[in-house]
Amino acid sequence: MIVLLGGSGYVGQAIQEALSLAGHRCSVLSRKQLDYTNVDLLTAYLRDNRPEFLINAAGYTGRPNVDACELHKTECLTGNAVLPGVIRNACEAAKIPWGHVSSGCIFTGARPDGSGFTESDPPNFSFRQNNCSFYSGTKALGEELLEGAEQCYIWRLRIPFNEYESPRNYITKLLRYDCLLEATNSLSQLSEFAASCVACWTKKVPFGLYNLTNPGSVTTRDVVELIVRNGLSKKQFRFFDSEDQFMQLAAKTPRSNCVLDSSKAIAAGLPLSPIHDALEKSMKSWVPAPK
Amino acid sequence: MIVLLGGSGYVGQAIQEALSLAGHRCSVLSRKQLDYTNVDLLTAYLRDNRPEFLINAAGYTGRPNVDACELHKTECLTGNAVLPGVIRNACEAAKIPWGHVSSGCIFTGARPDGSGFTESDPPNFSFRQNNCSFYSGTKALGEELLEGAEQCYIWRLRIPFNEYESPRNYITKLLRYDCLLEATNSLSQLSEFAASCVACWTKKVPFGLYNLTNPGSVTTRDVVELIVRNGLSKKQFRFFDSEDQFMQLAAKTPRSNCVLDSSKAIAAGLPLSPIHDALEKSMKSWVPAPK
Repeated sequence: MIVLLGGSGYVGQAIQEALSLAGHRCSVLSRKQLDYTNVDLLTAYLRDNRPEFLINAAGYTGRPNVDACELHKTECLTGNAVLPGVIRNACEAAKIPWGHVSSGCIFTGARPDGSGFTESDPPNFSFRQNNCSFYSGTKALGEELLEGAEQCYIWRLRIPFNEYESPRNYITKLLRYDCLLEATNSLSQLSEFAASCVACWTKKVPFGLYNLTNPGSVTTRDVVELIVRNGLSKKQFRFFDSEDQFMQLAAKTPRSNCVLDSSKAIAAGLPLSPIHDALEKSMKSWVPAPK
Repeated sequence: MIVLLGGSGYVGQAIQEALSLAGHRCSVLSRKQLDYTNVDLLTAYLRDNRPEFLINAAGYTGRPNVDACELHKTECLTGNAVLPGVIRNACEAAKIPWGHVSSGCIFTGARPDGSGFTESDPPNFSFRQNNCSFYSGTKALGEELLEGAEQCYIWRLRIPFNEYESPRNYITKLLRYDCLLEATNSLSQLSEFAASCVACWTKKVPFGLYNLTNPGSVTTRDVVELIVRNGLSKKQFRFFDSEDQFMQLAAKTPRSNCVLDSSKAIAAGLPLSPIHDALEKSMKSWVPAPK
Protein backbone atom coordinates (compact mmCIF):
# COMPACT_ATOMS: atom_id res chain seq x y z
CA MET A 1 0.00 0.00 0.00
CA ILE A 2 1.20 3.50 -0.95
CA VAL A 3 0.22 6.52 1.14
CA LEU A 4 -0.50 9.76 -0.70
CA LEU A 5 -0.54 13.18 1.00
CA GLY A 6 -2.21 16.05 -0.82
CA GLY A 7 -4.25 13.62 -2.91
CA SER A 8 -7.13 16.03 -3.54
CA GLY A 9 -4.95 18.69 -5.21
CA TYR A 10 -4.30 19.19 -8.92
CA VAL A 11 -1.08 17.18 -8.84
CA GLY A 12 -2.32 14.73 -6.20
CA GLN A 13 -5.29 13.70 -8.34
CA ALA A 14 -3.00 13.00 -11.27
CA ILE A 15 -0.79 10.87 -9.03
CA GLN A 16 -3.85 8.95 -7.78
CA GLU A 17 -4.72 8.13 -11.39
CA ALA A 18 -1.15 7.13 -12.21
CA LEU A 19 -1.01 4.84 -9.19
CA SER A 20 -4.29 3.24 -10.18
CA LEU A 21 -3.13 2.78 -13.81
CA ALA A 22 0.05 1.10 -12.53
CA GLY A 23 -2.03 -1.25 -10.38
CA HIS A 24 -1.03 0.14 -6.98
CA ARG A 25 -3.28 0.34 -3.95
CA CYS A 26 -3.25 3.89 -2.71
CA SER A 27 -4.42 5.36 0.56
CA VAL A 28 -5.10 9.09 0.36
CA LEU A 29 -4.47 10.59 3.79
CA SER A 30 -6.14 13.94 4.41
CA ARG A 31 -5.15 16.42 7.10
CA LYS A 32 -8.61 15.99 8.59
CA GLN A 33 -7.91 12.30 9.10
CA LEU A 34 -4.40 12.90 10.44
CA ASP A 35 -2.52 16.13 11.13
CA TYR A 36 0.53 15.01 9.17
CA THR A 37 2.26 18.32 9.80
CA ASN A 38 2.85 16.92 13.30
CA VAL A 39 5.96 14.73 13.15
CA ASP A 40 4.94 12.56 16.13
CA LEU A 41 1.50 11.79 14.71
CA LEU A 42 2.89 11.04 11.25
CA THR A 43 5.69 8.83 12.60
CA ALA A 44 3.21 6.83 14.71
CA TYR A 45 0.90 6.43 11.69
CA LEU A 46 3.75 5.18 9.50
CA ARG A 47 4.96 2.75 12.17
CA ASP A 48 1.44 1.39 12.68
CA ASN A 49 0.49 1.13 8.99
CA ARG A 50 3.89 0.45 7.39
CA PRO A 51 3.12 1.59 3.80
CA GLU A 52 5.64 0.41 1.20
CA PHE A 53 6.05 4.00 -0.05
CA LEU A 54 4.75 7.51 0.64
CA ILE A 55 4.19 10.34 -1.83
CA ASN A 56 3.92 13.96 -0.76
CA ALA A 57 1.88 15.97 -3.24
CA ALA A 58 0.76 18.44 -0.56
CA GLY A 59 2.03 21.97 -0.74
CA TYR A 60 0.86 25.55 -0.71
CA THR A 61 0.21 27.25 -4.05
CA GLY A 62 -1.44 30.64 -4.21
CA ARG A 63 -4.90 31.10 -5.71
CA PRO A 64 -5.47 32.36 -8.36
CA ASN A 65 -1.70 32.54 -8.74
CA VAL A 66 1.65 32.81 -6.99
CA ASP A 67 1.04 36.46 -6.00
CA ALA A 68 -1.30 35.22 -3.26
CA CYS A 69 1.66 33.55 -1.50
CA GLU A 70 3.03 37.02 -0.69
CA LEU A 71 -0.06 37.53 1.51
CA HIS A 72 -0.06 34.11 3.18
CA LYS A 73 3.59 33.65 4.06
CA THR A 74 3.05 31.52 7.15
CA GLU A 75 0.91 28.96 5.34
CA CYS A 76 3.25 29.01 2.34
CA LEU A 77 6.35 28.43 4.48
CA THR A 78 4.62 25.70 6.48
CA GLY A 79 3.31 23.84 3.44
CA ASN A 80 6.33 24.09 1.16
CA ALA A 81 9.38 24.15 3.43
CA VAL A 82 8.53 22.75 6.86
CA LEU A 83 6.18 19.99 5.69
CA PRO A 84 8.79 18.15 3.55
CA GLY A 85 11.19 18.39 6.51
CA VAL A 86 8.59 16.90 8.85
CA ILE A 87 7.79 14.09 6.41
CA ARG A 88 11.50 13.37 6.01
CA ASN A 89 11.94 13.09 9.77
CA ALA A 90 8.90 10.82 10.10
CA CYS A 91 9.83 8.62 7.11
CA GLU A 92 13.42 8.25 8.32
CA ALA A 93 12.26 7.38 11.84
CA ALA A 94 9.85 4.75 10.46
CA LYS A 95 12.23 3.72 7.64
CA ILE A 96 9.67 4.33 4.87
CA PRO A 97 10.93 5.28 1.38
CA TRP A 98 9.16 8.28 -0.09
CA GLY A 99 8.98 10.94 -2.77
CA HIS A 100 8.34 14.68 -2.65
CA VAL A 101 6.77 16.82 -5.35
CA SER A 102 9.06 19.83 -5.61
CA SER A 103 9.13 22.52 -8.26
CA GLY A 104 11.39 23.73 -11.03
CA CYS A 105 10.37 27.28 -10.16
CA ILE A 106 13.47 27.56 -7.97
CA PHE A 107 15.37 28.40 -11.16
CA THR A 108 15.33 31.40 -13.46
CA GLY A 109 16.69 31.59 -17.01
CA ALA A 110 18.99 28.95 -18.43
CA ARG A 111 22.66 28.08 -18.27
CA PRO A 112 24.93 30.65 -19.99
CA ASP A 113 25.04 28.49 -23.14
CA GLY A 114 21.22 28.32 -23.23
CA SER A 115 21.01 24.72 -22.05
CA GLY A 116 18.80 23.69 -19.16
CA PHE A 117 19.70 23.47 -15.49
CA THR A 118 20.54 19.97 -14.33
CA GLU A 119 20.03 18.39 -10.92
CA SER A 120 23.58 19.41 -9.96
CA ASP A 121 22.97 23.13 -10.47
CA PRO A 122 22.07 24.97 -7.27
CA PRO A 123 18.72 26.83 -7.34
CA ASN A 124 19.20 30.42 -8.55
CA PHE A 125 15.69 31.74 -7.80
CA SER A 126 15.50 31.44 -4.03
CA PHE A 127 15.75 33.37 -0.76
CA ARG A 128 19.49 32.72 -0.93
CA GLN A 129 19.62 34.75 -4.16
CA ASN A 130 17.02 37.24 -2.93
CA ASN A 131 15.46 37.59 -6.37
CA CYS A 132 12.49 35.29 -5.97
CA SER A 133 8.82 35.14 -5.10
CA PHE A 134 8.02 34.01 -1.56
CA TYR A 135 6.62 30.82 -3.10
CA SER A 136 9.87 29.95 -4.89
CA GLY A 137 11.85 30.80 -1.76
CA THR A 138 9.85 28.31 0.28
CA LYS A 139 10.13 25.59 -2.38
CA ALA A 140 13.93 26.01 -2.46
CA LEU A 141 14.08 25.88 1.36
CA GLY A 142 11.99 22.70 1.17
CA GLU A 143 14.66 21.09 -1.01
CA GLU A 144 17.35 22.38 1.36
CA LEU A 145 15.63 20.58 4.25
CA LEU A 146 15.82 17.35 2.21
CA GLU A 147 19.58 17.49 1.60
CA GLY A 148 21.02 14.11 2.51
CA ALA A 149 17.58 12.55 3.01
CA GLU A 150 17.52 8.75 3.04
CA GLN A 151 15.44 6.72 0.55
CA CYS A 152 13.92 9.88 -0.89
CA TYR A 153 12.95 11.07 -4.37
CA ILE A 154 12.62 14.76 -5.10
CA TRP A 155 10.56 15.35 -8.24
CA ARG A 156 10.61 18.77 -9.82
CA LEU A 157 7.41 19.78 -11.62
CA ARG A 158 7.29 22.80 -13.93
CA ILE A 159 4.09 24.51 -15.17
CA PRO A 160 1.72 21.55 -15.49
CA PHE A 161 -0.67 21.10 -18.38
CA ASN A 162 -2.84 18.35 -19.87
CA GLU A 163 -5.89 18.02 -22.11
CA TYR A 164 -8.45 19.05 -19.48
CA GLU A 165 -9.42 22.72 -19.25
CA SER A 166 -8.79 23.83 -15.66
CA PRO A 167 -7.63 27.02 -13.92
CA ARG A 168 -4.39 25.19 -12.97
CA ASN A 169 -3.65 24.05 -16.56
CA TYR A 170 -1.03 26.19 -18.37
CA ILE A 171 -2.95 26.01 -21.64
CA THR A 172 -6.09 27.27 -19.88
CA LYS A 173 -4.10 30.09 -18.29
CA LEU A 174 -2.81 31.24 -21.68
CA LEU A 175 -6.36 31.07 -23.08
CA ARG A 176 -7.77 33.16 -20.21
CA TYR A 177 -5.17 35.83 -19.45
CA ASP A 178 -5.79 39.20 -21.07
CA CYS A 179 -2.15 39.70 -21.87
CA LEU A 180 0.80 37.29 -21.92
CA LEU A 181 4.47 37.43 -20.97
CA GLU A 182 6.86 36.13 -23.62
CA ALA A 183 9.32 33.76 -21.92
CA THR A 184 11.10 30.46 -22.48
CA ASN A 185 10.15 27.57 -20.23
CA SER A 186 10.29 23.87 -19.67
CA LEU A 187 6.88 22.37 -18.89
CA SER A 188 5.49 19.18 -17.38
CA GLN A 189 2.66 17.25 -19.02
CA LEU A 190 0.78 16.34 -15.87
CA SER A 191 -0.05 12.67 -16.44
CA GLU A 192 3.48 11.99 -17.73
CA PHE A 193 4.85 13.72 -14.64
CA ALA A 194 2.65 11.60 -12.38
CA ALA A 195 3.48 8.39 -14.27
CA SER A 196 7.17 9.25 -13.90
CA CYS A 197 6.84 9.67 -10.13
CA VAL A 198 5.16 6.28 -9.87
CA ALA A 199 7.69 4.67 -12.25
CA CYS A 200 10.55 5.83 -10.00
CA TRP A 201 9.20 3.55 -7.30
CA THR A 202 7.98 0.73 -9.54
CA LYS A 203 11.22 0.51 -11.55
CA LYS A 204 13.43 1.02 -8.48
CA VAL A 205 15.09 4.06 -10.00
CA PRO A 206 17.91 5.27 -7.70
CA PHE A 207 16.73 7.73 -5.03
CA GLY A 208 17.57 11.40 -5.52
CA LEU A 209 16.64 14.53 -7.39
CA TYR A 210 14.86 14.43 -10.78
CA ASN A 211 13.79 17.22 -13.14
CA LEU A 212 10.49 15.77 -14.41
CA THR A 213 9.92 18.12 -17.31
CA ASN A 214 9.23 17.13 -20.89
CA PRO A 215 12.49 17.28 -22.86
CA GLY A 216 13.05 20.65 -24.54
CA SER A 217 11.59 24.05 -23.93
CA VAL A 218 9.03 26.36 -25.50
CA THR A 219 8.36 30.07 -25.67
CA THR A 220 4.96 31.49 -24.81
CA ARG A 221 4.56 32.40 -28.50
CA ASP A 222 5.29 28.77 -29.49
CA VAL A 223 2.44 27.59 -27.27
CA VAL A 224 0.07 30.30 -28.51
CA GLU A 225 0.84 29.27 -32.09
CA LEU A 226 -0.04 25.66 -31.22
CA ILE A 227 -3.25 26.85 -29.54
CA VAL A 228 -4.29 28.71 -32.68
CA ARG A 229 -3.21 25.97 -35.06
CA ASN A 230 -5.16 23.36 -33.08
CA GLY A 231 -8.29 25.50 -33.07
CA LEU A 232 -8.52 26.05 -29.30
CA SER A 233 -9.01 29.76 -29.76
CA LYS A 234 -9.41 32.31 -32.51
CA LYS A 235 -8.70 35.35 -30.37
CA GLN A 236 -5.88 37.79 -31.01
CA PHE A 237 -3.36 37.10 -28.23
CA ARG A 238 -1.69 40.17 -26.75
CA PHE A 239 1.74 40.28 -25.14
CA PHE A 240 3.37 42.61 -22.62
CA ASP A 241 6.17 44.71 -24.15
CA SER A 242 8.65 43.49 -21.53
CA GLU A 243 9.00 41.73 -18.19
CA ASP A 244 9.22 45.18 -16.60
CA GLN A 245 5.82 46.10 -18.00
CA PHE A 246 4.40 42.75 -16.83
CA MET A 247 5.73 43.40 -13.31
CA GLN A 248 4.28 46.92 -13.35
CA LEU A 249 0.84 46.06 -14.66
CA ALA A 250 0.01 42.48 -13.77
CA ALA A 251 2.24 40.90 -11.11
CA LYS A 252 3.11 41.48 -7.48
CA THR A 253 6.11 39.16 -7.36
CA PRO A 254 8.64 37.98 -9.97
CA ARG A 255 7.92 34.80 -11.92
CA SER A 256 10.33 31.94 -12.48
CA ASN A 257 10.84 31.36 -16.17
CA CYS A 258 13.43 28.66 -16.76
CA VAL A 259 14.74 25.81 -18.81
CA LEU A 260 15.42 22.51 -17.05
CA ASP A 261 17.45 19.59 -18.33
CA SER A 262 15.55 16.32 -17.91
CA SER A 263 18.20 13.99 -19.33
CA LYS A 264 18.71 12.29 -15.95
CA ALA A 265 15.01 11.36 -15.91
CA ILE A 266 15.10 10.21 -19.53
CA ALA A 267 18.21 8.11 -18.91
CA ALA A 268 16.36 6.49 -15.99
CA GLY A 269 13.62 5.43 -18.44
CA LEU A 270 10.92 7.75 -17.13
CA PRO A 271 8.02 8.33 -19.58
CA LEU A 272 8.44 11.99 -20.60
CA SER A 273 7.79 12.77 -24.27
CA PRO A 274 9.32 15.74 -26.14
CA ILE A 275 7.55 18.95 -25.14
CA HIS A 276 6.16 19.84 -28.60
CA ASP A 277 4.67 16.36 -29.00
CA ALA A 278 3.16 16.49 -25.50
CA LEU A 279 1.60 19.92 -26.09
CA GLU A 280 0.20 18.94 -29.48
CA LYS A 281 -1.27 15.75 -28.04
CA SER A 282 -3.03 17.59 -25.19
CA MET A 283 -4.42 20.16 -27.61
CA LYS A 284 -5.62 17.59 -30.12
CA SER A 285 -7.68 15.88 -27.40
CA TRP A 286 -8.68 19.14 -25.65
CA VAL A 287 -11.64 18.73 -23.29
CA PRO A 288 -13.37 22.01 -22.41
CA ALA A 289 -14.60 22.35 -18.83
CA PRO A 290 -18.33 21.64 -18.35
CA LYS A 291 -20.18 24.99 -18.42
CA MET B 1 -3.55 37.78 32.75
CA ILE B 2 -0.56 37.53 30.39
CA VAL B 3 0.18 34.30 28.50
CA LEU B 4 3.83 33.32 28.06
CA LEU B 5 5.02 30.80 25.47
CA GLY B 6 8.50 29.33 25.90
CA GLY B 7 8.45 30.16 29.60
CA SER B 8 10.87 27.41 30.58
CA GLY B 9 13.71 28.63 28.35
CA TYR B 10 16.60 30.90 29.27
CA VAL B 11 14.83 34.02 28.03
CA GLY B 12 11.38 32.82 29.08
CA GLN B 13 12.45 32.39 32.71
CA ALA B 14 13.82 35.94 32.76
CA ILE B 15 10.52 37.20 31.36
CA GLN B 16 8.59 35.26 34.03
CA GLU B 17 10.65 37.03 36.68
CA ALA B 18 10.20 40.44 35.07
CA LEU B 19 6.43 39.90 34.88
CA SER B 20 6.34 38.89 38.53
CA LEU B 21 8.46 41.92 39.57
CA ALA B 22 6.07 44.18 37.67
CA GLY B 23 3.12 42.63 39.47
CA HIS B 24 1.59 40.82 36.48
CA ARG B 25 -0.21 37.50 36.64
CA CYS B 26 1.41 35.20 34.12
CA SER B 27 0.24 31.91 32.68
CA VAL B 28 3.06 29.83 31.22
CA LEU B 29 1.63 27.72 28.45
CA SER B 30 3.69 24.65 27.51
CA ARG B 31 3.43 22.73 24.25
CA LYS B 32 2.42 19.70 26.30
CA GLN B 33 -0.60 21.60 27.58
CA LEU B 34 -1.47 23.04 24.17
CA ASP B 35 0.11 22.49 20.76
CA TYR B 36 0.42 26.21 20.08
CA THR B 37 2.13 25.56 16.75
CA ASN B 38 -1.40 24.69 15.55
CA VAL B 39 -3.13 27.93 14.60
CA ASP B 40 -6.64 26.58 15.20
CA LEU B 41 -5.86 25.32 18.69
CA LEU B 42 -4.06 28.53 19.66
CA THR B 43 -6.84 30.74 18.28
CA ALA B 44 -9.47 28.77 20.19
CA TYR B 45 -7.39 28.99 23.39
CA LEU B 46 -7.02 32.77 23.03
CA ARG B 47 -10.73 33.24 22.32
CA ASP B 48 -11.68 31.15 25.33
CA ASN B 49 -9.17 32.63 27.78
CA ARG B 50 -8.84 36.20 26.46
CA PRO B 51 -5.44 37.11 27.96
CA GLU B 52 -4.67 40.84 27.98
CA PHE B 53 -1.31 40.17 26.29
CA LEU B 54 0.78 37.28 24.97
CA ILE B 55 4.57 36.96 24.94
CA ASN B 56 6.38 34.53 22.65
CA ALA B 57 9.73 33.54 24.12
CA ALA B 58 9.69 30.15 22.36
CA GLY B 59 12.16 29.51 19.61
CA TYR B 60 14.76 27.04 18.45
CA THR B 61 18.38 27.65 19.47
CA GLY B 62 21.02 25.03 18.85
CA ARG B 63 22.74 23.25 21.71
CA PRO B 64 25.55 23.72 22.62
CA ASN B 65 25.59 26.48 20.02
CA VAL B 66 24.20 27.73 16.72
CA ASP B 67 26.11 25.09 14.71
CA ALA B 68 23.52 22.52 15.83
CA CYS B 69 20.83 24.37 13.86
CA GLU B 70 22.55 23.29 10.63
CA LEU B 71 21.65 19.70 11.56
CA HIS B 72 18.06 20.35 12.68
CA LYS B 73 16.78 22.61 9.95
CA THR B 74 13.15 21.52 10.12
CA GLU B 75 12.85 22.19 13.86
CA CYS B 76 14.78 25.45 13.51
CA LEU B 77 12.56 26.71 10.67
CA THR B 78 9.41 25.65 12.52
CA GLY B 79 10.37 27.26 15.82
CA ASN B 80 11.86 30.50 14.55
CA ALA B 81 10.01 31.35 11.33
CA VAL B 82 6.68 29.53 11.19
CA LEU B 83 5.80 29.78 14.89
CA PRO B 84 5.77 33.61 15.00
CA GLY B 85 3.62 33.58 11.85
CA VAL B 86 1.18 31.14 13.47
CA ILE B 87 1.02 33.22 16.66
CA ARG B 88 0.43 36.35 14.59
CA ASN B 89 -2.47 34.72 12.77
CA ALA B 90 -4.00 33.45 16.04
CA CYS B 91 -3.52 36.76 17.90
CA GLU B 92 -4.97 38.76 15.01
CA ALA B 93 -7.97 36.42 14.76
CA ALA B 94 -8.59 36.69 18.52
CA LYS B 95 -7.55 40.38 18.65
CA ILE B 96 -4.92 39.84 21.35
CA PRO B 97 -1.91 42.21 21.49
CA TRP B 98 1.41 40.42 21.77
CA GLY B 99 5.18 40.55 21.63
CA HIS B 100 7.78 38.33 19.98
CA VAL B 101 11.35 37.73 21.12
CA SER B 102 13.41 38.10 17.96
CA SER B 103 17.16 38.37 17.62
CA GLY B 104 19.74 40.92 16.58
CA CYS B 105 21.71 38.08 14.96
CA ILE B 106 20.04 38.93 11.64
CA PHE B 107 22.70 41.63 11.23
CA THR B 108 26.44 41.48 10.67
CA GLY B 109 28.94 44.31 11.18
CA ALA B 110 27.88 47.91 11.62
CA ARG B 111 26.80 50.79 9.39
CA PRO B 112 29.58 52.14 7.14
CA ASP B 113 30.28 54.94 9.67
CA GLY B 114 30.60 52.39 12.51
CA SER B 115 27.26 53.25 14.11
CA GLY B 116 24.73 50.57 14.94
CA PHE B 117 21.89 49.30 12.79
CA THR B 118 18.53 50.84 13.60
CA GLU B 119 15.08 49.34 13.32
CA SER B 120 14.76 50.81 9.81
CA ASP B 121 17.79 48.96 8.42
CA PRO B 122 16.90 45.71 6.64
CA PRO B 123 18.58 42.57 8.03
CA ASN B 124 21.90 41.93 6.27
CA PHE B 125 22.64 38.45 7.69
CA SER B 126 19.78 36.38 6.32
CA PHE B 127 18.80 33.88 3.64
CA ARG B 128 18.10 36.89 1.43
CA GLN B 129 21.78 37.83 1.65
CA ASN B 130 22.94 34.18 1.57
CA ASN B 131 25.76 34.84 4.03
CA CYS B 132 24.16 33.59 7.21
CA SER B 133 23.78 30.62 9.51
CA PHE B 134 20.57 28.63 9.11
CA TYR B 135 19.56 29.96 12.56
CA SER B 136 19.90 33.61 11.52
CA GLY B 137 18.09 32.89 8.26
CA THR B 138 15.10 31.50 10.13
CA LYS B 139 15.04 34.41 12.61
CA ALA B 140 15.03 36.93 9.73
CA LEU B 141 12.23 34.99 7.99
CA GLY B 142 10.33 35.09 11.30
CA GLU B 143 10.48 38.88 11.25
CA GLU B 144 9.46 38.87 7.58
CA LEU B 145 6.32 36.90 8.51
CA LEU B 146 5.47 39.64 11.05
CA GLU B 147 5.64 42.52 8.57
CA GLY B 148 2.49 44.58 9.00
CA ALA B 149 1.38 42.62 12.07
CA GLU B 150 -1.31 44.31 14.18
CA GLN B 151 -0.75 45.15 17.87
CA CYS B 152 2.62 43.44 17.87
CA TYR B 153 6.01 44.15 19.44
CA ILE B 154 9.15 42.61 17.98
CA TRP B 155 11.98 42.67 20.52
CA ARG B 156 15.49 41.99 19.30
CA LEU B 157 17.77 40.27 21.82
CA ARG B 158 21.54 40.09 21.27
CA ILE B 159 23.94 37.77 23.16
CA PRO B 160 22.31 37.64 26.61
CA PHE B 161 24.28 37.79 29.86
CA ASN B 162 23.60 38.35 33.54
CA GLU B 163 25.26 37.61 36.88
CA TYR B 164 24.40 33.89 36.97
CA GLU B 165 26.91 31.43 35.54
CA SER B 166 25.09 29.35 32.90
CA PRO B 167 25.97 27.76 29.55
CA ARG B 168 23.69 30.33 27.84
CA ASN B 169 25.36 33.34 29.52
CA TYR B 170 27.87 35.19 27.29
CA ILE B 171 30.27 35.74 30.23
CA THR B 172 30.22 32.00 30.98
CA LYS B 173 30.86 31.24 27.31
CA LEU B 174 33.93 33.48 27.27
CA LEU B 175 35.15 31.84 30.50
CA ARG B 176 34.72 28.31 29.11
CA TYR B 177 35.78 28.49 25.45
CA ASP B 178 39.36 27.41 24.75
CA CYS B 179 39.93 30.16 22.26
CA LEU B 180 37.98 33.34 21.51
CA LEU B 181 37.05 35.31 18.42
CA GLU B 182 37.77 39.04 18.60
CA ALA B 183 34.67 40.90 17.40
CA THR B 184 32.58 43.96 18.18
CA ASN B 185 29.05 43.39 19.43
CA SER B 186 26.05 44.86 21.10
CA LEU B 187 24.80 42.74 24.00
CA SER B 188 21.61 42.39 26.06
CA GLN B 189 21.69 42.20 29.86
CA LEU B 190 19.01 39.57 30.30
CA SER B 191 16.94 40.99 33.16
CA GLU B 192 17.02 44.47 31.59
CA PHE B 193 15.92 42.94 28.29
CA ALA B 194 13.06 41.12 30.02
CA ALA B 195 12.06 44.22 32.01
CA SER B 196 12.04 46.20 28.76
CA CYS B 197 9.70 43.69 27.10
CA VAL B 198 7.32 43.93 30.03
CA ALA B 199 7.62 47.73 30.17
CA CYS B 200 6.56 47.97 26.52
CA TRP B 201 3.19 46.58 27.52
CA THR B 202 2.92 48.25 30.93
CA LYS B 203 3.85 51.70 29.65
CA LYS B 204 1.82 51.35 26.44
CA VAL B 205 4.87 51.95 24.28
CA PRO B 206 3.83 52.09 20.58
CA PHE B 207 3.78 48.67 18.89
CA GLY B 208 6.61 47.84 16.50
CA LEU B 209 10.22 46.79 16.28
CA TYR B 210 12.72 47.48 19.10
CA ASN B 211 16.44 46.74 19.36
CA LEU B 212 16.64 45.80 23.07
CA THR B 213 20.41 45.93 23.47
CA ASN B 214 22.30 47.88 26.10
CA PRO B 215 23.46 51.18 24.56
CA GLY B 216 26.97 50.96 23.09
CA SER B 217 29.07 48.03 21.98
CA VAL B 218 32.05 46.06 23.23
CA THR B 219 34.83 43.99 21.75
CA THR B 220 35.56 40.49 23.02
CA ARG B 221 38.85 41.85 24.46
CA ASP B 222 36.91 44.56 26.34
CA VAL B 223 34.80 41.88 28.02
CA VAL B 224 37.82 39.68 28.78
CA GLU B 225 39.55 42.68 30.39
CA LEU B 226 36.48 43.23 32.59
CA ILE B 227 36.45 39.52 33.46
CA VAL B 228 40.08 39.66 34.59
CA ARG B 229 39.73 43.01 36.37
CA ASN B 230 36.69 41.74 38.29
CA GLY B 231 38.50 38.57 39.35
CA LEU B 232 36.22 36.10 37.56
CA SER B 233 39.22 34.29 36.06
CA LYS B 234 42.98 34.37 36.17
CA LYS B 235 43.51 32.29 33.05
CA GLN B 236 45.41 33.51 30.02
CA PHE B 237 42.72 34.02 27.35
CA ARG B 238 43.66 32.95 23.84
CA PHE B 239 42.26 34.41 20.63
CA PHE B 240 41.94 33.09 17.09
CA ASP B 241 44.22 34.92 14.63
CA SER B 242 41.28 35.75 12.38
CA GLU B 243 37.65 34.96 11.62
CA ASP B 244 38.92 32.66 8.85
CA GLN B 245 40.89 30.64 11.39
CA PHE B 246 37.86 30.55 13.71
CA MET B 247 35.69 29.23 10.85
CA GLN B 248 38.34 26.62 9.95
CA LEU B 249 38.97 25.35 13.46
CA ALA B 250 35.92 25.93 15.61
CA ALA B 251 32.73 26.71 13.71
CA LYS B 252 30.49 25.06 11.15
CA THR B 253 28.48 28.15 10.25
CA PRO B 254 29.24 31.89 10.25
CA ARG B 255 28.45 33.92 13.37
CA SER B 256 26.62 37.22 13.46
CA ASN B 257 28.77 39.89 15.08
CA CYS B 258 27.05 43.24 14.97
CA VAL B 259 26.37 46.60 16.50
CA LEU B 260 22.75 47.61 17.04
CA ASP B 261 21.40 51.07 17.78
CA SER B 262 19.00 51.01 20.73
CA SER B 263 18.11 54.72 20.77
CA LYS B 264 14.48 53.99 19.82
CA ALA B 265 14.16 51.81 22.93
CA ILE B 266 15.93 54.40 25.11
CA ALA B 267 13.70 57.19 23.77
CA ALA B 268 10.69 55.03 24.68
CA GLY B 269 11.93 54.94 28.28
CA LEU B 270 12.91 51.27 28.36
CA PRO B 271 15.32 50.33 31.18
CA LEU B 272 18.56 49.52 29.34
CA SER B 273 21.77 50.75 31.01
CA PRO B 274 25.02 51.48 29.12
CA ILE B 275 26.74 48.24 28.17
CA HIS B 276 29.94 48.76 30.20
CA ASP B 277 27.92 49.53 33.35
CA ALA B 278 25.70 46.50 32.80
CA LEU B 279 28.67 44.17 32.29
CA GLU B 280 30.52 45.52 35.32
CA LYS B 281 27.41 45.16 37.49
CA SER B 282 26.88 41.52 36.45
CA MET B 283 30.51 40.68 37.11
CA LYS B 284 30.61 42.41 40.49
CA SER B 285 27.69 40.27 41.67
CA TRP B 286 28.82 37.11 39.84
CA VAL B 287 27.16 33.92 41.11
CA PRO B 288 29.03 30.74 40.13
CA ALA B 289 26.87 27.76 39.23
CA PRO B 290 26.38 25.21 42.04
CA LYS B 291 28.98 22.44 41.59
